[in-house]
Amino acid sequence: MREIGVGLLGLGVVGSEVAHVLLHRATRLSEQVGAAVTLRRALVRDVSKERSHPLPPEMLTTNPDDVLAADDIDIVVELLGGEQPALDLIRRAVSNGKHVVTANKEIIAKAGYRLLSLAAQHGVDLRYEASVGSGIPIISPLQQDLAANEISAIRAIVNGTTNYILSKMAHEGLDYATALRQAQDLGYAEPDPTNDTEGIDAAYKLAILASLAFHTPVRPSAIYRQGISALNPKDFTYANELGYAVKLLAIAKRQGEALEARVHPALTPLDSQLANVDGVYNAVQIEGDLVGTLVFFGRGAGGQPTSSTVVADVLTIARNIANGGLIRPRIELNRRIPVMPMLDVETSYYFRLAVADQPGVLAQISRVLGEHRISISTVIQKELDPAAQTAIIVIMTHPASERSVQAAVTEFTHLPLVQEVSALIRVER
Amino acid sequence: MREIGVGLLGLGVVGSEVAHVLLHRATRLSEQVGAAVTLRRALVRDVSKERSHPLPPEMLTTNPDDVLAADDIDIVVELLGGEQPALDLIRRAVSNGKHVVTANKEIIAKAGYRLLSLAAQHGVDLRYEASVGSGIPIISPLQQDLAANEISAIRAIVNGTTNYILSKMAHEGLDYATALRQAQDLGYAEPDPTNDTEGIDAAYKLAILASLAFHTPVRPSAIYRQGISALNPKDFTYANELGYAVKLLAIAKRQGEALEARVHPALTPLDSQLANVDGVYNAVQIEGDLVGTLVFFGRGAGGQPTSSTVVADVLTIARNIANGGLIRPRIELNRRIPVMPMLDVETSYYFRLAVADQPGVLAQISRVLGEHRISISTVIQKELDPAAQTAIIVIMTHPASERSVQAAVTEFTHLPLVQEVSALIRVER
Repeated sequence: MREIGVGLLGLGVVGSEVAHVLLHRATRLSEQVGAAVTLRRALVRDVSKERSHPLPPEMLTTNPDDVLAADDIDIVVELLGGEQPALDLIRRAVSNGKHVVTANKEIIAKAGYRLLSLAAQHGVDLRYEASVGSGIPIISPLQQDLAANEISAIRAIVNGTTNYILSKMAHEGLDYATALRQAQDLGYAEPDPTNDTEGIDAAYKLAILASLAFHTPVRPSAIYRQGISALNPKDFTYANELGYAVKLLAIAKRQGEALEARVHPALTPLDSQLANVDGVYNAVQIEGDLVGTLVFFGRGAGGQPTSSTVVADVLTIARNIANGGLIRPRIELNRRIPVMPMLDVETSYYFRLAVADQPGVLAQISRVLGEHRISISTVIQKELDPAAQTAIIVIMTHPASERSVQAAVTEFTHLPLVQEVSALIRVER
Repeated sequence: MREIGVGLLGLGVVGSEVAHVLLHRATRLSEQVGAAVTLRRALVRDVSKERSHPLPPEMLTTNPDDVLAADDIDIVVELLGGEQPALDLIRRAVSNGKHVVTANKEIIAKAGYRLLSLAAQHGVDLRYEASVGSGIPIISPLQQDLAANEISAIRAIVNGTTNYILSKMAHEGLDYATALRQAQDLGYAEPDPTNDTEGIDAAYKLAILASLAFHTPVRPSAIYRQGISALNPKDFTYANELGYAVKLLAIAKRQGEALEARVHPALTPLDSQLANVDGVYNAVQIEGDLVGTLVFFGRGAGGQPTSSTVVADVLTIARNIANGGLIRPRIELNRRIPVMPMLDVETSYYFRLAVADQPGVLAQISRVLGEHRISISTVIQKELDPAAQTAIIVIMTHPASERSVQAAVTEFTHLPLVQEVSALIRVER
């Protein structure tokens, strides 16, 4: 039986699980592949560090070339995370004729297209199923199973940290700071949570999905981003009354000759598949012209779910090597579809305003919206503090352009009866 | 550019859509494959029949050999449905060295293992993604993306007809006969609906999924089946009060050295992913030891969704041919895990009993359950008809074996105070 060697870059949470699976399921995995898939060694920073799944010491190295340039390694698995040195190491692996598997969304989002070209030049495969949705198969369905479709829209919950925080705010009425602290205590959020809470991670993942779905390179920097830190538990309550959940959605849609690409909190109908994705789960909803609506749901983070996908990518490459197939990865990003400016995007909106509890306030607000051609679908007025004569007005609008809405918001702040525009959240149906 | 020829067997609802996609998206599909994928001809019963997407007349033939034995055809797509002549035609195609794509669940469920062996002998590929879940990618995720996992359970809604009927019964309170008639009027149910309503179709699909998930051949005849025709809208109401929906589930689970494999109506918690799958949608939930819970959701029937998957299979084979890869399909059904007898299966149950509204009736029922070691989790007693002194008792049990439950039911029918065991539905959490 032919032996196919695997080398790891990184032995953190995911790397340890991948090593564990490759070592302890070797026989079964090899049967499935028709060749022995053998873990050779792993690059680590510190060979003496205690690990939950210890590897034989002779498998650990601090010299990258023991993995990248080793004759007995066919497949390099990059699990370091972050941009550098991971990107350089992947480049070197590919240049040395190694197939590469990575879970690194940042690198694939920023440099995937160039890396795939490099892999094609060197006749090797570069797979990255785990870069989006952890254990959920979504890259391979987009590349393979949906290939006959014109995709019109992707709506996705792809960040488990923010989804955990939003679920806590929705179901337990916690404020943002408390929910974040709980997530940090449980290890679901980093000490510096910016990457998750500001939608940076979600934008990387959306860039990857949108590039594949629309066959065009989508740069993460072209994606509009709004994080969740300004959300208030009140809005979860009002949204629920109106029949909506609040989720951080990553959205990409074909609009004529352009793409919408945006990450922001959104009201989504309670009976939608995405509204019911709670806690650290992720879900990706795809609309294709033939297939209609598909949803892929599963755990969006964690060592074991990610190892499931990483090892699957290793096995796919190993199967191709064993079958003697010439592996020529296809780069199908052969369209050039620009991302449209956020100000041109049209969506429905949810407003929450603090106003003076006086006659005529709704008339003033309606006039401003009307002048900006924003039409109202629902209004809820709540008396808040009779002594202070303050009320809350919640407004849902029909679709309107971001430009009009921003202009209306600016005008609201000049109305004497409007004390504050307390919340402005987009709606995604 | 190399040309890869495709021949169709059957030009019904799905066949017409597949032909339409192959003809009208030829350029784009060929770009993705790196070879021209060309529809050559289609076997039909009647060349003069009017069709929604007409093909050029020279592409129609009534002679199977024009497809099965044609030198210009590399891939044969079987979309006739039913066992014969489809099975013979697939065998002949494979024996002639043609790759085969089929959406035929009956054939794959009954003869898939033998057909895959035959394909391996002839060095050709046999793909059947559309045989389960129509447009939902599920075969390929099981074969590829979940390959590192030990699968412990599959729970699936894989029959759109019955799910449509059950959704109508649940949401509109229709009785079974009325809901069925509506489904028939809309073309969602056949004039003879037995194949769908008795779970035969779902059992074929479960056989296919379970074989792949557990790496063992699972014959459809070994799968326990109970249909939906005895369900009463009352039970949807009581189930809802108790926090459950009623769904026709296809369930396969690893239990030690055996498998549970069964298709039957089941109470499933309202907050589960499956409870919210309504109408003609399908969903497949898979539990793997690494990945945790995954759910795949989408349209379970229809020409366009099925064509999405069938064409994807064609493209995958075409890509392999174009890449010069030697295609050696792997048969991984290398375990032998028996399906356990239904009487040995343990689940929770929902009972509805019509009883005399007299003191002591609940004591009698509890005694019988206790004697059979069935423990009660919830009881609801409802006075039904004070004049007739009839009441309804709804009981939810903790897990108990089917054998005990059947014995208790037999004993109930001999209790003087029990008029009828009106419903007995399994619970799947």
